[in-house]
Amino acid sequence: MKIVSEQRESDTHQNIVDVAERLFSQIGFQKTTVADIARELRMSPANVYRFFSAKAEINEAVARRLLAQMEAEVDAVARGKGSAGEKLREAIATLEKSNAQRFVANRKLHELLETAFNESWPIVQEHSRTLNSVMTTIISQGVEADEFHVKDCQLAAILVRSACIRFCHPRLMVECAQEPEPTLDQMVDFCLVALR
Amino acid sequence: MKIVSEQRESDTHQNIVDVAERLFSQIGFQKTTVADIARELRMSPANVYRFFSAKAEINEAVARRLLAQMEAEVDAVARGKGSAGEKLREAIATLEKSNAQRFVANRKLHELLETAFNESWPIVQEHSRTLNSVMTTIISQGVEADEFHVKDCQLAAILVRSACIRFCHPRLMVECAQEPEPTLDQMVDFCLVALR
Repeated sequence: MKIVSEQRESDTHQNIVDVAERLFSQIGFQKTTVADIARELRMSPANVYRFFSAKAEINEAVARRLLAQMEAEVDAVARGKGSAGEKLREAIATLEKSNAQRFVANRKLHELLETAFNESWPIVQEHSRTLNSVMTTIISQGVEADEFHVKDCQLAAILVRSACIRFCHPRLMVECAQEPEPTLDQMVDFCLVALR
Repeated sequence: MKIVSEQRESDTHQNIVDVAERLFSQIGFQKTTVADIARELRMSPANVYRFFSAKAEINEAVARRLLAQMEAEVDAVARGKGSAGEKLREAIATLEKSNAQRFVANRKLHELLETAFNESWPIVQEHSRTLNSVMTTIISQGVEADEFHVKDCQLAAILVRSACIRFCHPRLMVECAQEPEPTLDQMVDFCLVALR
């Protein structure tokens, strides 16, 4: 019976995050209260607080899940087929597309991520480390295949991510939207020249 | 007599911008009113409006002058001595230092630039074009000296500026402050590999 009960707990936890994400994208995370979330789930606020000790924890859980989805997409690119150069381009393009779909298209959700980035929440730093690690994997694959020639793959990953930040940073994407250049391909080509 | 009078007009214009900059850095540009500026100059608000038709124009004039100072510093690097690689590094370092001194150290002035960048004021776009042009000059010097090998110097300038944005963008500098890598030298080295 314990397993069933644990499953239920896990479902409730997930339901809270689902409803929170929906409300955040409709009315914004700052205006969404624990009472709003509880009402949607037909439970008491006290019950929500059994799972999250504060509203800030719900904010983090929603943001973490959004970032984790992006990480999974980029990870799939690293594990997929193709040369390291192709994967590197696809990884950056995936991050751009993923950011654009989730946050540029939905300004309310964007606010959540904007705050997370502005205030350097631990989950943002964790996200950055995860993306560095995936990019390091791709660059290492390139070095093994004699496609890239760099000594420090981890540093190269950080450099490529920094160079491409305007395509992967929700707020910069909005800010740079009216500057047509560099395009993602131009920027990736530049990085590939440096790596080869 | 006309020359004296024009000189006086120009002095008054300059005094308004001086006082506005001082007040902006003390109490922030949003809280500073035209009345505050007029009071400091012992003139009537109506007299200030002879020179600037709206407070927004004073904001722009202060921001434009701050950006122009940075542009002049970078331009001096381009006109100075040294290899193109050295100049490119110095130009980025100058932008970083200049931003740090002016805006990261003074959060009130930072607000003005932050708003100008967020809202893409025309002066910010003009500033971007000016910096692109100075970087294009440096890269062209490198191509002439057979130090760099790129076909399109203007595109290369845009790419280098994009790659180094975390060192030159007031808000990103604050946001990236706790991420030690890449350092400015590492990022410039990466760009130089791509240019050579």
